[in-house]
Amino acid sequence: MTARRGARKLRLHIENFRRKAEIFHITPERYAAAARRHRALARRLDVTIGWDGDIVEQALREADVAIGVPGRRERLRERAPQLAWIHHPSAGVDPLMPFDWLPADMVLTNNRGVHGAKAEEFIRMAITMLHTRMPEVIAQQHARVWRQVFTPALAGRTALVIGLGDLGEGAARAARQLGLTVIGVRRNARPCRHADRVHTFRALDRLLPKADFVVVAVPLTAETRNLLSRERLELLKPGCGVINIARGPVIDNAALADKLAAGTLGGAVLDVVDPEPLPPDSALWDVPNLVITPHISCDDGDDYVALTLDRWFENLARFLQNKPLANRVNRTLGY
Amino acid sequence: MTARRGARKLRLHIENFRRKAEIFHITPERYAAAARRHRALARRLDVTIGWDGDIVEQALREADVAIGVPGRRERLRERAPQLAWIHHPSAGVDPLMPFDWLPADMVLTNNRGVHGAKAEEFIRMAITMLHTRMPEVIAQQHARVWRQVFTPALAGRTALVIGLGDLGEGAARAARQLGLTVIGVRRNARPCRHADRVHTFRALDRLLPKADFVVVAVPLTAETRNLLSRERLELLKPGCGVINIARGPVIDNAALADKLAAGTLGGAVLDVVDPEPLPPDSALWDVPNLVITPHISCDDGDDYVALTLDRWFENLARFLQNKPLANRVNRTLGY
Repeated sequence: MTARRGARKLRLHIENFRRKAEIFHITPERYAAAARRHRALARRLDVTIGWDGDIVEQALREADVAIGVPGRRERLRERAPQLAWIHHPSAGVDPLMPFDWLPADMVLTNNRGVHGAKAEEFIRMAITMLHTRMPEVIAQQHARVWRQVFTPALAGRTALVIGLGDLGEGAARAARQLGLTVIGVRRNARPCRHADRVHTFRALDRLLPKADFVVVAVPLTAETRNLLSRERLELLKPGCGVINIARGPVIDNAALADKLAAGTLGGAVLDVVDPEPLPPDSALWDVPNLVITPHISCDDGDDYVALTLDRWFENLARFLQNKPLANRVNRTLGY
Repeated sequence: MTARRGARKLRLHIENFRRKAEIFHITPERYAAAARRHRALARRLDVTIGWDGDIVEQALREADVAIGVPGRRERLRERAPQLAWIHHPSAGVDPLMPFDWLPADMVLTNNRGVHGAKAEEFIRMAITMLHTRMPEVIAQQHARVWRQVFTPALAGRTALVIGLGDLGEGAARAARQLGLTVIGVRRNARPCRHADRVHTFRALDRLLPKADFVVVAVPLTAETRNLLSRERLELLKPGCGVINIARGPVIDNAALADKLAAGTLGGAVLDVVDPEPLPPDSALWDVPNLVITPHISCDDGDDYVALTLDRWFENLARFLQNKPLANRVNRTLGY
């Protein structure tokens, strides 16, 4: 290990998936641009870039580090005897769970930190759209009806932000900037400087009735699946707006649709659904007062790869100095 | 005059219009609530409240001041021999022009200052919606198509705010807060603390090609009618977003629709159209990448009357002290 991290070059394999949107592709050009920004570190790497497994087997045989988790993961230690660190270039590792494929001595990191700025923008928009009753206004436009729908000032309302990672912090910043009281919920009650107060999940049932807006920003894990269940959705006050930028299965979307159709919520913005892509025959598409956005809330369309690689190179410096890596995924918690 | 403003009570007539939305109605309850906040001033008033002209003739015969411009305005001095001041409880006085009905010794004021906070909220939403390509996303939802549309970070772009009154200042504040460079345009180049720079209208043709977002926030006057003409719209850069919170006729909406249909603009949000209500058979309703909102951008749905009356009472204090009134409408400029 020590020798590898010293003199000889490290082998980095970058694995791309064409089914992912183009903004996520780590092309040779994008890699080269990042390497120019991190010249000294990049000089210590030999890099292969593969697509959909085309060169993955031979690359893994020699790879020390990887960006992109291979599609085939069985017997990974055998296939990649030197691989010490895999970076997953997304925030959510839920598609990689359970982690039974991950060798005990292999570190998995995620892309935490790349999404907060766009999440903040999106939440600012989504809260204001719900407050302004834009779902209703949009429906009126479609029906060619011009009827005034007035709303009071937004400031002073309460946002409940569930999950205070990179996305949730962005959401809290946005809500605070809009003049809202921000209540955060996460595993521990550690304070967040953008939230007025932070509680653990144990307080959730008590907090849901206080919210004018609920923002869901937790990773999808065994604990968070169906977190906003039908029973919990019943705790929301009439007129509450619900925003999901996490993962579809965190909310019981059928129950949410029922409440929206019944008019007992103000509206909802779902940037994530289940499954994605949402099939054309899904019942969600025309639920009243629901805006569906296609999983775009937190990804920078110009700079996603640049932001990813800049953070990865910072982590590479830690790796080369045998320091603990940032953004290590906890195998038990699942994020 | 001096005697009237001294000892005896002033006669205030408040004229309401049922065709206006309920939030604008100065009901006895809303007046009483404001009077409690301005007790000393209110004690000096005798108040009549009328609806659609029901008591307007007898009220005008004795009125010293009025809130709400009577529907019938001919021979106003004869009908209202003592009337010294009329307050128009809206920002735009365009429906009252030309001012040939307004006696030379009668002061007309408008509601400037009541709209800025909501305008700021609306512009923050509208800019972010256009940047996030929400018109396209909304159309996709309607067509049951889930297709990712990514966008870069918003900060660093340029907003051109045309008109820097109460609404335009709110727009400038919003754009600045979103991290945009803000260029303002108004009659004089007087600086605005929320704009990076301010130009006169003479610079408009030179500035339009620089804008990523154009916000129209001017009063409708002879000078601003068709300000964004077909020729001027041609000066906008591809992808530019257009937002109108002023009055419909300030933009050549047919030309705007042509450009939107041709895909040579990013999108538009029109909170004002011409006529209003927009008739069901208008060609505007389904123009691609156009969001139509029903003249809701700048009016507080809970507190419009309270905000109006609070400012009016402040002006009443000036009136009673024979000081110049705030928000006097310039008969020549038309705002």
